[in-house]
Amino acid sequence: MAQKPSIPKGTRDFGPVEMVGRNYIFNTVRSVFAKYGFQCIETPSIENLSTLLGKYGDEGDKLLFKVLNSGDAFSGIDFKSYEMQTEEGTRMNSNALSLKVCEKGLRYDLTVPFARFVVQHQNEISFPFKRYQIQPVWRADRPQKGRYREFYQCDVDVIGSKSLINELELVQIVDEVFGKMGINVCVKINNRKILAGIAEVCGQPDKMVDITVAIDKIDKIGLDAVKEELREKELTENAISIIEPVLLLEGTTDEKIAKMSEVLAASEVGMKGIEEIRTLFGLISNAGIKSEVQLDLSLARGLNYYTGAIFEVKAKDFEIGSICGGGRYDDLTGIFGLPDMSGVGISFGADRIYDVLKGLDLFPKDINGTADILFTNMGEAETAYVIPIAAQLRARGVRCEIYPDATKLKKQFDYADRKGIKYLAIVGGDEMAEGVVSIKNLSTGEQRKEDAKKISDLTW
Amino acid sequence: MAQKPSIPKGTRDFGPVEMVGRNYIFNTVRSVFAKYGFQCIETPSIENLSTLLGKYGDEGDKLLFKVLNSGDAFSGIDFKSYEMQTEEGTRMNSNALSLKVCEKGLRYDLTVPFARFVVQHQNEISFPFKRYQIQPVWRADRPQKGRYREFYQCDVDVIGSKSLINELELVQIVDEVFGKMGINVCVKINNRKILAGIAEVCGQPDKMVDITVAIDKIDKIGLDAVKEELREKELTENAISIIEPVLLLEGTTDEKIAKMSEVLAASEVGMKGIEEIRTLFGLISNAGIKSEVQLDLSLARGLNYYTGAIFEVKAKDFEIGSICGGGRYDDLTGIFGLPDMSGVGISFGADRIYDVLKGLDLFPKDINGTADILFTNMGEAETAYVIPIAAQLRARGVRCEIYPDATKLKKQFDYADRKGIKYLAIVGGDEMAEGVVSIKNLSTGEQRKEDAKKISDLTW
Repeated sequence: MAQKPSIPKGTRDFGPVEMVGRNYIFNTVRSVFAKYGFQCIETPSIENLSTLLGKYGDEGDKLLFKVLNSGDAFSGIDFKSYEMQTEEGTRMNSNALSLKVCEKGLRYDLTVPFARFVVQHQNEISFPFKRYQIQPVWRADRPQKGRYREFYQCDVDVIGSKSLINELELVQIVDEVFGKMGINVCVKINNRKILAGIAEVCGQPDKMVDITVAIDKIDKIGLDAVKEELREKELTENAISIIEPVLLLEGTTDEKIAKMSEVLAASEVGMKGIEEIRTLFGLISNAGIKSEVQLDLSLARGLNYYTGAIFEVKAKDFEIGSICGGGRYDDLTGIFGLPDMSGVGISFGADRIYDVLKGLDLFPKDINGTADILFTNMGEAETAYVIPIAAQLRARGVRCEIYPDATKLKKQFDYADRKGIKYLAIVGGDEMAEGVVSIKNLSTGEQRKEDAKKISDLTW
Repeated sequence: MAQKPSIPKGTRDFGPVEMVGRNYIFNTVRSVFAKYGFQCIETPSIENLSTLLGKYGDEGDKLLFKVLNSGDAFSGIDFKSYEMQTEEGTRMNSNALSLKVCEKGLRYDLTVPFARFVVQHQNEISFPFKRYQIQPVWRADRPQKGRYREFYQCDVDVIGSKSLINELELVQIVDEVFGKMGINVCVKINNRKILAGIAEVCGQPDKMVDITVAIDKIDKIGLDAVKEELREKELTENAISIIEPVLLLEGTTDEKIAKMSEVLAASEVGMKGIEEIRTLFGLISNAGIKSEVQLDLSLARGLNYYTGAIFEVKAKDFEIGSICGGGRYDDLTGIFGLPDMSGVGISFGADRIYDVLKGLDLFPKDINGTADILFTNMGEAETAYVIPIAAQLRARGVRCEIYPDATKLKKQFDYADRKGIKYLAIVGGDEMAEGVVSIKNLSTGEQRKEDAKKISDLTW
């Protein structure tokens, strides 16, 4: 019996129409990245588990897809030694056993492989190293709407420079990418040093992560719930009274900076953050950025490794999470043996950008990824007449197809229609005798005859 | 202690220079595929093991990378029930156990996922379906020179049409792709029906596969060894005396066809093969193909599913295996429940094509993937002057970088040099006062001053 074909939960097939849209996104970001001197690299999908484990927290470790060792993975394994005693009785230490039989895993993101790449190839690289990377990543997340187990990331990072020019360039890239796509965006910027400063002036510097995690939720759960969470994390009422006005801060960027300078006056790291923000917004104002750029002190971003600027980009005319985000990290490569390598990077979310472009009908109309002309097939003699004509057109860069089978014309018309082909080139006995091709415009229905010899000189 | 970073055996990192070359290959094939009306699809890297198993023979099954079920993969497993008794004692049935804990695997090629895709989406597809697919595949092969565990395939197939126009188009695509790249190729063509016919006239039609496998080796092991192998496979001396002259056949395509028509006169399938070859070569002669195209009766290709034309492409000026190959198959989708879908396709070997382009120095010189201009960084004031100029240049599509840090000029020069950047744009106090930018051509050493306002109007 034949198998009913299916794919694993959380994975997707992309058909021709979706791929046209996705390639438009990839090509757009790629061309902008290149314009700023970023270079493409690729790393293997499979990394050693030792490279991946411990980099994403305990939760992340659980979401790694592990690849079974090839060959006799289970031979010689003493299963007894993986038994654990629990209150419920004996059970298998599944985690330890899986590490024994799996030495490799699928990459979880592009950041850790990038850090590994930089350290491994440090002698071949010219620093500051500006790279972009567009590849799939895998996460054993519970599949749900908009969350996939295999999805692409588009990362652009510069490593080996502390200059805020890099932050500026990333904002310029965001501005140019979404400008090209016609998506109105708001770029939100904050700085982790400001968040550290807030924790410091609260008198609870050890609570920086808790504060960050809590205020990161303000958009989702609102001020009161954030305050409640801060209380649960044992922030004092005094601390909360310092944090609350920061979250509610309004006015221009200059006004916000002025206010925060007062709040953070006593914190060295906080004032360093203020200085960085002031410089960055100064650079931005001089660079002809068209998108809205906002200082958002409630922006925190979950990842622990950020140490300076953090970014998040939202589409203004479409309800969806952030479509791009990132930040500066001061020590991503340290764990692989190369300390003090500061870097900054952002990641574009291809799936969400696709949804925005589709939802707002912003995909360009001329990227249908299909042929311009379909030559109908009325038999062998006609095809022999058509083949050199089609070859000529292709030599001029015109995309064309010859319908391969001499079936009913209706079927050939339908094929052209379903594929979105613009012109039908009809060749029967009359056309051959006259040395012409009948060209039918499928959207207007208009039909005309063209000299077969001159057809490749026309504009298609 | 820091981990020493490494990647799994048989996998590769691709740095900026390699990626420029690889993307040149992918973009070239992609643009040609599109010109013939082929459309891009992508399938997930992870497929259900049930989709993959049994499609590549026992050897192939062993080379599948299996992905461990996420979560508690080993919980509740009765390991006892996987024990096997062998002469040497009790051992684990590793294969059965791995299937229990792994339901998914990494795709082994793009053909089986394509067949699965066609069946699963048959109601959304307009047949004949012309698709291309450029994605990595994984094989747990023993790593060795030129053989990788993760590598890209570039497949182009049309399914749902028996017309030989499709075979012609694939030859045209090969001709155009390698023509664009400047690689001289020889396209070798044979037909499986001819091989079946030979087995038939030998009186041993059941030996078709054995004959195919043996004569596939003639290039590697020579005539005598092939004959020896045929004897081992229990081909009669009479059969071998029929096969031998076929392998040694010389002359023009017409002469070969004429001779084979005599040999195969008694075989219906053989004569069908002759007819197909005659038609295909007729089509080819009318299509303006520039590459050498050869009927090669010793061409067999290992894969069992081919039933008609088979192709193989060799670089004429570089010693390497075939750089492209494929053929027609009559029932690839049957196993997934869609019988009688004839298709034909070829696959381009990106790694080997890369080696040929590199070995013959054929990569275009203007695809260096780096910025055209590097603006030096002499401090904050200079950078503020430079940022709008760089923005203007980028708006005109010129790729440029600003060196992010105000370090020694020597270091900035070296950076430009190592990245292969053509021009250095130097801005110090003098240039700012004059409203100019000093442009240094790094290959000629020539330096000139350009009006800062007009710099984006120049040709770079």
